[in-house]
Amino acid sequence: MKTFNLCFLGFGNVGHALVRLLGEKSAEMREEYGIEWRITGMATRRAGWIASAEGLASESLLSAEFAAGSSSSQSRIGVSPPTNVREWLEAARCDVMFEITSLEPLTGQPAVEHVRAALESGAHVVTANKGTIVHAYRELRALALSRGRHFLFDATVADMPVFSLFRECLPAVRLQAFRGIFNSTTGVILEEMERGRTFADGVRRAQTLGVTETDPAYDVDGWDAAVKTCALANVLMDAPLSLDEIEREGIRGLDAEDVRAARAAGRPYKLVSRAERTAEGRIAARVGAEQIAADDPLAAAGGTSLVINFELDILPGLTLTAHHPDLRSTAYGLLSDFINAVRAET
Amino acid sequence: MKTFNLCFLGFGNVGHALVRLLGEKSAEMREEYGIEWRITGMATRRAGWIASAEGLASESLLSAEFAAGSSSSQSRIGVSPPTNVREWLEAARCDVMFEITSLEPLTGQPAVEHVRAALESGAHVVTANKGTIVHAYRELRALALSRGRHFLFDATVADMPVFSLFRECLPAVRLQAFRGIFNSTTGVILEEMERGRTFADGVRRAQTLGVTETDPAYDVDGWDAAVKTCALANVLMDAPLSLDEIEREGIRGLDAEDVRAARAAGRPYKLVSRAERTAEGRIAARVGAEQIAADDPLAAAGGTSLVINFELDILPGLTLTAHHPDLRSTAYGLLSDFINAVRAET
Repeated sequence: MKTFNLCFLGFGNVGHALVRLLGEKSAEMREEYGIEWRITGMATRRAGWIASAEGLASESLLSAEFAAGSSSSQSRIGVSPPTNVREWLEAARCDVMFEITSLEPLTGQPAVEHVRAALESGAHVVTANKGTIVHAYRELRALALSRGRHFLFDATVADMPVFSLFRECLPAVRLQAFRGIFNSTTGVILEEMERGRTFADGVRRAQTLGVTETDPAYDVDGWDAAVKTCALANVLMDAPLSLDEIEREGIRGLDAEDVRAARAAGRPYKLVSRAERTAEGRIAARVGAEQIAADDPLAAAGGTSLVINFELDILPGLTLTAHHPDLRSTAYGLLSDFINAVRAET
Repeated sequence: MKTFNLCFLGFGNVGHALVRLLGEKSAEMREEYGIEWRITGMATRRAGWIASAEGLASESLLSAEFAAGSSSSQSRIGVSPPTNVREWLEAARCDVMFEITSLEPLTGQPAVEHVRAALESGAHVVTANKGTIVHAYRELRALALSRGRHFLFDATVADMPVFSLFRECLPAVRLQAFRGIFNSTTGVILEEMERGRTFADGVRRAQTLGVTETDPAYDVDGWDAAVKTCALANVLMDAPLSLDEIEREGIRGLDAEDVRAARAAGRPYKLVSRAERTAEGRIAARVGAEQIAADDPLAAAGGTSLVINFELDILPGLTLTAHHPDLRSTAYGLLSDFINAVRAET
């Protein structure tokens, strides 16, 4: 049995869901894996760098006072005064840092710098932030390896254990190509249009479901799907691919009548991501609207569901589908990475 | 870098495919995992117990002379004379035993006894034989644990990394229920009937494709699907379930006209396996023909493809589909288990 000090960098919806899930799964983690945990660090733009090596009370962290950033709640949960990420990690005696800030797609900063600091401090890092993979995967992987720490990110793409599947369950395979539907918002918008509603209705429906990014343009113009495609290609095909090498087209250009006709013909439009190795050994990748036939492996993903189809040198085809994932699914990606990072240490 | 001594118990089509795949993936196993291997033991009903701690030549093992059991080929590849499984494991200095004999569904013997002997001798065991899981999973798991050895079986069900997925990528989840299509032969037969051909035509077509068991009745009457259902429930739901507790109905009772009409209506028949936890904490399981709607996660499996849908306490739904798996897929299940059994030792 060992107690791990957990630090949260960023504390939005996913962070709240993770704290709840950690509470819910405490007994199983203790009994099956010998893992105990306490939260010793919390950092948000509003609250600043909060650390207490004896542990912060997770109920307080979930309270409205903490969310509002009132100093009284912070003092109640035990504040020490670090002023930057390195001081914070040290004050919290961090074993595992959850990097769950919002994505900054163009540079991945400051998340990359924060992950670097955590690995250098001797902590494992678990992230839901695709920016670190898109902009600095090779450097961070090498750093983690050199420090004997884990850098894990199953929560970044498609709410399924895709990266851990390849790492743990598919050794010595070569991934030739993949195709997938990685963005829920566009799936919801297209289905609304198929029902005769407008593009704007679709955006509102996706916002009601809570699946959109803060800026819906990020979904609608294919940025979210492109970032995920980039992350998958970088990690699973071991080929450095940058975001601007991905051909990208969103769903704004689609005509509502065409969308309805495509559905009626049994070949609905979806925002599809694809990547494949070219004869020259490069990766060709694109994101764009495509019609999907009923017998296509991607056809299984309706509504907010996500799907990915792999073409491997050994298995002719393998498809994973996540049906209607939610915030808990993303939080579980972080929880499972945490368990996998430390299960050999207990 | 470490060299592992491999022993093959049984050497049919899957064994041949595995020897070829081991050859094909040698460089990757060496470079990525530090794993070298040699085959030091081979046992078949015809050839007897063959062992050579210096290694047998895999080309000779794949030759027609070896298959025919001629004594000249055996002496050429270096025969020492063990007379039972324990002597054989010792003479071969076995590190990893592949148990790939044919299934004996009623007792799982003599495979269970052979696996026990191998684990007691200090070898890891990798099997494609469902009988060991159905009849002795708990005992063999406990034995492996007590000896610090691995007992792995990703090649037993559906030609996908299902067991390793749960073991490595889905820690601390609770599986509530699963449904799946686990038998290729019945899929092929039903599709032939949908095209207006007879049941017997379908059996012949499946035999041509090489997907049937030696006795097609074993597929057609749902035994194969039931054995796989039993193995999955035993391992993933951690509830002892015996084969005779599974309600089982094959596809013989289906009327050809009904099968065609169901397809025409977009709800084709499939041989579906299902298991779920009951309110009393037991497992209720059944195998039988069911009509599958187009938006069902299982609809993705046409032809010889296999599919499994999981309902977890955390992820609302997760589906894995193996498209047109073949002998190489099964052999890869054994190869990946071998790598996973030993990767921590190099």
